Amino acid sequence: MNKVLVLGAGQLARMMELAGTPLNLDVKAFDVRSDKVVSPIYPDRIYGDLQQGIANADVITAEFEHVKHDVLAECEQSGKLFPTSESIKIGGDRRLEKALLESCNAANAKHYFINTKADFDNALAQLSLPIIFKTALEGYDGKGQWRLKSAADIDSVWQEMSEFLASAKETQGIVAEQMVPFDRELSLVGVRRVNGDVAVYPLTENHHTNGILSVSLAAPVDSQLQDQAGTVFKALSGKLNYVGVLAIEFFQVGEQLLVNEIAPRVHNSGHWTQQGADTCQFENHLRAICDLPLGGTQLIRPTAMINIIGEDSVSDDVLSIPSVTMHWYKKGKRAGRKMGHINVSGDNEQQLAERLQKLASILCKQAFPDLADFANAYVNKTK
Amino acid sequence: MNKVLVLGAGQLARMMELAGTPLNLDVKAFDVRSDKVVSPIYPDRIYGDLQQGIANADVITAEFEHVKHDVLAECEQSGKLFPTSESIKIGGDRRLEKALLESCNAANAKHYFINTKADFDNALAQLSLPIIFKTALEGYDGKGQWRLKSAADIDSVWQEMSEFLASAKETQGIVAEQMVPFDRELSLVGVRRVNGDVAVYPLTENHHTNGILSVSLAAPVDSQLQDQAGTVFKALSGKLNYVGVLAIEFFQVGEQLLVNEIAPRVHNSGHWTQQGADTCQFENHLRAICDLPLGGTQLIRPTAMINIIGEDSVSDDVLSIPSVTMHWYKKGKRAGRKMGHINVSGDNEQQLAERLQKLASILCKQAFPDLADFANAYVNKTK
Repeated sequence: MNKVLVLGAGQLARMMELAGTPLNLDVKAFDVRSDKVVSPIYPDRIYGDLQQGIANADVITAEFEHVKHDVLAECEQSGKLFPTSESIKIGGDRRLEKALLESCNAANAKHYFINTKADFDNALAQLSLPIIFKTALEGYDGKGQWRLKSAADIDSVWQEMSEFLASAKETQGIVAEQMVPFDRELSLVGVRRVNGDVAVYPLTENHHTNGILSVSLAAPVDSQLQDQAGTVFKALSGKLNYVGVLAIEFFQVGEQLLVNEIAPRVHNSGHWTQQGADTCQFENHLRAICDLPLGGTQLIRPTAMINIIGEDSVSDDVLSIPSVTMHWYKKGKRAGRKMGHINVSGDNEQQLAERLQKLASILCKQAFPDLADFANAYVNKTK
Repeated sequence: MNKVLVLGAGQLARMMELAGTPLNLDVKAFDVRSDKVVSPIYPDRIYGDLQQGIANADVITAEFEHVKHDVLAECEQSGKLFPTSESIKIGGDRRLEKALLESCNAANAKHYFINTKADFDNALAQLSLPIIFKTALEGYDGKGQWRLKSAADIDSVWQEMSEFLASAKETQGIVAEQMVPFDRELSLVGVRRVNGDVAVYPLTENHHTNGILSVSLAAPVDSQLQDQAGTVFKALSGKLNYVGVLAIEFFQVGEQLLVNEIAPRVHNSGHWTQQGADTCQFENHLRAICDLPLGGTQLIRPTAMINIIGEDSVSDDVLSIPSVTMHWYKKGKRAGRKMGHINVSGDNEQQLAERLQKLASILCKQAFPDLADFANAYVNKTK
């Protein structure tokens, strides 16, 4: 049981191949654009089509939740797909996701589903401003969202949304959510094995820039919050009979965690585990789907992950900062595209904060606009 | 400057490719058996012959010191070879190695060179038993050695050695060394950049079984010994104007370190750095030869490396021990062959010792004959 096929051949599959190779796992990926099976590290090396990929694989998994449903069905039919297509689909449809949260009594923001003007009016009546509207399908990284903050904008927002609904396929819809005045965004990455074994990494604090994750920080965390998140993880992953890595994004409101969304896969906010944990999320996902014992998930050292967005190089000087590790994805340069990430650790939070400050002083401010502010605030906090 | 050609396509080149890929380095290897350039991870993927490999590369390096001299000359002529062919050759010829040590005043065992019976008699007169005789060229992992412990064996040892010399090519020779009653075998892995920057990892304690490294232990080390080793590293690497990772094996005799041998490359006793240090030896070697800033070399956590010799699988149960990381080389099974290694860390030495004991209880005793004794002694020492 060591041949893995990943649906999707992007950076997550690539990091799975890098993590799986030393473990003697043979990781290939189905590139949904070319409909070919490739090596994620050598994407020009082709290993046939989906049918051959399914036949050759011992287990199949996905690096993203928007896999075409006919592809998922074909994989599931082979009996090799982990997690299940149901779990993957839930990550790709906010209506299913909300239903799952409700069925598990997982606290989340008050919400309504919208397909018609009557639904929209009902949501407005039940919720108070500000409200966030999100497309049920295919939204990610802040795309497909409308924020309604002032009553003056109700008509224009509905105008845009109704045009969107009219032009979208009929399975599309919108979810209206009470915008929550949260203190922090946190996420929990965890892993579950076929036998029900669960291991979760420490909660990570996430910072976004223009709707895209810019920094994730993994540092010692309040045990009450960690327990709360772990309980939600166990409930959701148990309900789904989930196998593999599952990420849960939370809003922290006071002492309470509200689930924002879930991702049925390895997750950007878990990339820090490559340097900051015993076993990284990519290896743990592979271990879980190959039915191997799960690896340690505790924090070894405070670690931050900084996304590189839209840039295909950074100054070599960043490598002079101790414990900086570069992770490039070898993707073509494009504005707003995730091109790589930087992990940096410290023996303690103060050292990590100082290293982040140094990093911010070297990196180009246009490409990393919020990093200096983040690092300065962190230095002050850890003084 | 990101295309690297490694001379030799074994596990060291493979781990360089795995370490270099996230750093955006393109690592290929010249397979000296097939005379083809390949991907070390996908050795059936061919990128032409040596000439093409040299032309395509920005920098060239070696994973072993026994590269044919005409190949080294061809690479050096391109101006891309790091370290120099002189440094690589020194690692492959004990006579050059000893001359280097003498020129740097690096303490080492008393020794004589032997090509004739007169040389042999002279060595016997100058040294006391026990004496170890090592072939000057091509010996490794305990091969090509004779140990003379009793005067009764002088004739039979000379008989074997003279037959060896008669049948060997004329550049061959033998080095007679005073066998040293050492306390421990230690090694220092360090790295030097073109600009003279040097970084060294902590000294590692090495244990051999049947002449092959079985366990390396990286744990906090006496600073006097570390300084002594660092001074030798700076002297040797400076003398050679060395670029890349260089390993120095020592005998510890009381408070003194005697150089046993040097390896002008990444080294088996540095594999623990993949989990126990900020930047592993493979990445630091690549950083050095690509003229990038060196990464941190300090010990993050006590870490041990266990070689897997002659076995192509171990029980999956070892993965249930926290912080165990497997590194398989994907080589065909053969008795005595290094097939992979296991890294295991602990938050402190006591925890590491307990994990080693657990590992020993799971691993097959025939394949890991000395591990249980080592682990038990370490548990007692750290209690």
